[in-house]
Amino acid sequence: MGSHGTLSQEFFSRVSKNTLDAEEFRRQGHLMIDFLADYYHNIETFPVRSQVSPGYLREIMPKSAPYNPEQIETVLEDVRRKILPGITHWQSPNFFAYFPVPASTAGFLGEMLATGLNVPSFNWISSPAATELENIVMDWLGKMLQLPKSFLFSGGGGGVLQASSSEAILCTLVAARDKTLRQHGMENIGRLVVYCSDQTHSSLLKGAKIAGMNPKNFRTIKTSKSSNFQLCPTQLELAILSDVENGLIPLYLCVTIGTTSSTAVDPLETLSEVGKMYKLWVHVDAAYAGSACICPEFRHFLDGIENVNSFSLNAHKWLLTTLDCCCLWLKDPSDLIKSLSTYPDYLKNHASDTRKVVDYKDWQIMLTRRFRALKLWFVLRSYGVDKLRGFIRGRMAMAKYFEGLVAMDKRFEVVVPRHFSMVCFRVSPSAVVCCDGNGENDVNEINRKLLESVNGSGKLYMSHTVLEGVYVIRFPIVGTLTDFRHVSAAWKVLQNHADSLLA
Amino acid sequence: MGSHGTLSQEFFSRVSKNTLDAEEFRRQGHLMIDFLADYYHNIETFPVRSQVSPGYLREIMPKSAPYNPEQIETVLEDVRRKILPGITHWQSPNFFAYFPVPASTAGFLGEMLATGLNVPSFNWISSPAATELENIVMDWLGKMLQLPKSFLFSGGGGGVLQASSSEAILCTLVAARDKTLRQHGMENIGRLVVYCSDQTHSSLLKGAKIAGMNPKNFRTIKTSKSSNFQLCPTQLELAILSDVENGLIPLYLCVTIGTTSSTAVDPLETLSEVGKMYKLWVHVDAAYAGSACICPEFRHFLDGIENVNSFSLNAHKWLLTTLDCCCLWLKDPSDLIKSLSTYPDYLKNHASDTRKVVDYKDWQIMLTRRFRALKLWFVLRSYGVDKLRGFIRGRMAMAKYFEGLVAMDKRFEVVVPRHFSMVCFRVSPSAVVCCDGNGENDVNEINRKLLESVNGSGKLYMSHTVLEGVYVIRFPIVGTLTDFRHVSAAWKVLQNHADSLLA
Repeated sequence: MGSHGTLSQEFFSRVSKNTLDAEEFRRQGHLMIDFLADYYHNIETFPVRSQVSPGYLREIMPKSAPYNPEQIETVLEDVRRKILPGITHWQSPNFFAYFPVPASTAGFLGEMLATGLNVPSFNWISSPAATELENIVMDWLGKMLQLPKSFLFSGGGGGVLQASSSEAILCTLVAARDKTLRQHGMENIGRLVVYCSDQTHSSLLKGAKIAGMNPKNFRTIKTSKSSNFQLCPTQLELAILSDVENGLIPLYLCVTIGTTSSTAVDPLETLSEVGKMYKLWVHVDAAYAGSACICPEFRHFLDGIENVNSFSLNAHKWLLTTLDCCCLWLKDPSDLIKSLSTYPDYLKNHASDTRKVVDYKDWQIMLTRRFRALKLWFVLRSYGVDKLRGFIRGRMAMAKYFEGLVAMDKRFEVVVPRHFSMVCFRVSPSAVVCCDGNGENDVNEINRKLLESVNGSGKLYMSHTVLEGVYVIRFPIVGTLTDFRHVSAAWKVLQNHADSLLA
Repeated sequence: MGSHGTLSQEFFSRVSKNTLDAEEFRRQGHLMIDFLADYYHNIETFPVRSQVSPGYLREIMPKSAPYNPEQIETVLEDVRRKILPGITHWQSPNFFAYFPVPASTAGFLGEMLATGLNVPSFNWISSPAATELENIVMDWLGKMLQLPKSFLFSGGGGGVLQASSSEAILCTLVAARDKTLRQHGMENIGRLVVYCSDQTHSSLLKGAKIAGMNPKNFRTIKTSKSSNFQLCPTQLELAILSDVENGLIPLYLCVTIGTTSSTAVDPLETLSEVGKMYKLWVHVDAAYAGSACICPEFRHFLDGIENVNSFSLNAHKWLLTTLDCCCLWLKDPSDLIKSLSTYPDYLKNHASDTRKVVDYKDWQIMLTRRFRALKLWFVLRSYGVDKLRGFIRGRMAMAKYFEGLVAMDKRFEVVVPRHFSMVCFRVSPSAVVCCDGNGENDVNEINRKLLESVNGSGKLYMSHTVLEGVYVIRFPIVGTLTDFRHVSAAWKVLQNHADSLLA
């Protein structure tokens, strides 16, 4: 190899040693496993919400990357000293904020394996197993949810794993938009109308804006406490009729099963009928609550699903699959593929030419993709349907228990009916009025103070929402490590802080 | 706890045991590390491109998820027997297809840690360390690339880690679109024009379609071999002038440093001047080649970058960071934030209210996000600037070596000049003509057969492109485990298969 051989030695002695050497990988991998196992072992010793101030890390970090390699032990020590204090511990059993993202050993292992193989499975040939396993697990999970056969590959539909519900919503919006504009002409993009409620997740309006739709044409139907913050089918129909009268084109309806604010459940059966009548693309966003429907007793929340176009849930929200893993099913994937397919020369291959394989690049925004199916497959196999149902039921039971604790303390009230494993509650006006006799603003202020005081203690972490002007504490119980004793202890902390605040 | 206590025991005995138990996590984690270390140890024993047929997996998999839990050992045995045969081994040292995605131990460890912590860092408060570390590593890498200060947080700009260049392109397109439409009005979306060359990655046109722009307004400037498939500034300017004359609004120019087909380099300095003159948003897509610019001797490829709006590269393509990790820098992130920000009640928090923190949800399509900064930080620290430069230089040297091998065999020709670590070559017409006297189609057919025959052998895997009707074999040398001996062996395989085909 002459001079190239010399170059090789010069370069490789410095570079390839340890970079992906199997034995060094083994040594460092075991170190990291022990680091993480110890982390889980000690997870309750950290303040749940990080207590650092903005800019804390820049002050203690070098201004530039190091010129010379550093030992993994040094890096891990920095993780311990510099990174962990800035982590909000989402896997802590005392994390009750947003919607949690419960991890599991099986989900972690599946992700490790995907990372180890590191195959970007954009089309079938780039790693057939990645595509085919995704087809299979999407059918498995579809069956667990009793989805109509038309949503499964085995029934002419199909599913895909995306990063998040935001991506699922954007992709289906684009598919719906293009389907309608193929009929009406591209120039009518400004006439398309998207329907949702004021409780629909913000990613719908963000997605519609990304897709170039006019914000003037977003119909956000107002909800109210009197109807449990459900999207009202009659109001939807009135909005549609008014839009049609004004020469607009009704396009897309997002129905939510378990809203982010309060886990409200839109009336899917009636809404899907309205959608069908006016030829809307109906998408069901069940990001958090969808997973519950693997239990027969909760499956009724999906009644009416046979009339919709697409359905998504985040397996990373309540199905023990690590971030990120959004499951999207479609009755007619061809609409999606028409909008999102590309086929440049450098990707042409025999398998794709035959059109007998799925090329998932045409089912998502990105070209490249991680082998997400592995973690879902690991979770489904390691725990099985029975244990996964048990996981859901356990969290439902804990939420019911917490709801009971709130109800027994007259200073508090549950604000909306509980459907799933989240309780929305607050210090009730009566408790505040009895102290200083002020109005709803003061009640909100007390609840805001209570939340901040509890979160500031580091003992647990909750977040809030606002419903019809009412500041509400959300208490979702989803964590993998959360047990009744954590719920019980959390309630005691809440009561203690309320004691001080209301004194 | 009364009856809830009973429920707890009933549920938790079945569910939580082992699901995220620290000791079981440790046991299974170590198993997986050994599985992967053994995989890397044996990686050269697998056929590089999977040799399975479509549908192979469905035939050997159950139709439904198991009802009862299965042991991790059983699942791993199925990975060995059922999944690995369907994997195309992107980490094999004999993988020379598409653009490879070279993994490293440090990248893997960073991803493991991110998965173990499992924090969705959509805003600062959800995990301050995740946001701040991302700010820091984007400045570190920006400095390594000698980006103008205006692209760094420390200089008023900033960087973000996204999933892929497709996302970076879509996000910047939307930011550019909205910035222009704020001036011209939403109804003019149909007048916006996007410019690129016929060598630009397909994700640009896909992104523009997703963003609701009219496909009639995509100007794909033709390139040719005579100018090494560069986008011609004069032709660009003529296209812009013609569009302006026709009442259209020039919006966005994508300049590529290292195209996917042939690693062509668009003349950034001149193009960015044209972009400036006509007030285009100029984005530089250096998905693969950008990483090379951490070496001073290759930094000149970015000359002119000071005039553009945004710049992206995929650290998962040539910087030892596992999938997925696209680095996007912007001079003025406020345009992006205006387009992509959302702030629903359930995400409101004091830190965001102060506007003194970065909330990365407003810098990307998705709300949720993985803690990608960890793996980039692990890579930068574990290898340091010097070793990373050595990694780039080693691959450049191997490509130069391979180019020499091709040049020494008169039956082959290098098709375009080599800029980076990819050689584009083919069996030359003279070698084919001497055999059967036919035209260019036959030359293409011989090259297609050569590629398929080599890939079918499982000994190495390459892919192709088509340049001005010429079928070209692409040979990128990027793999972490690839050494001169693999390049040398690959060339011998190629020569042997050519011997048979040309006989």
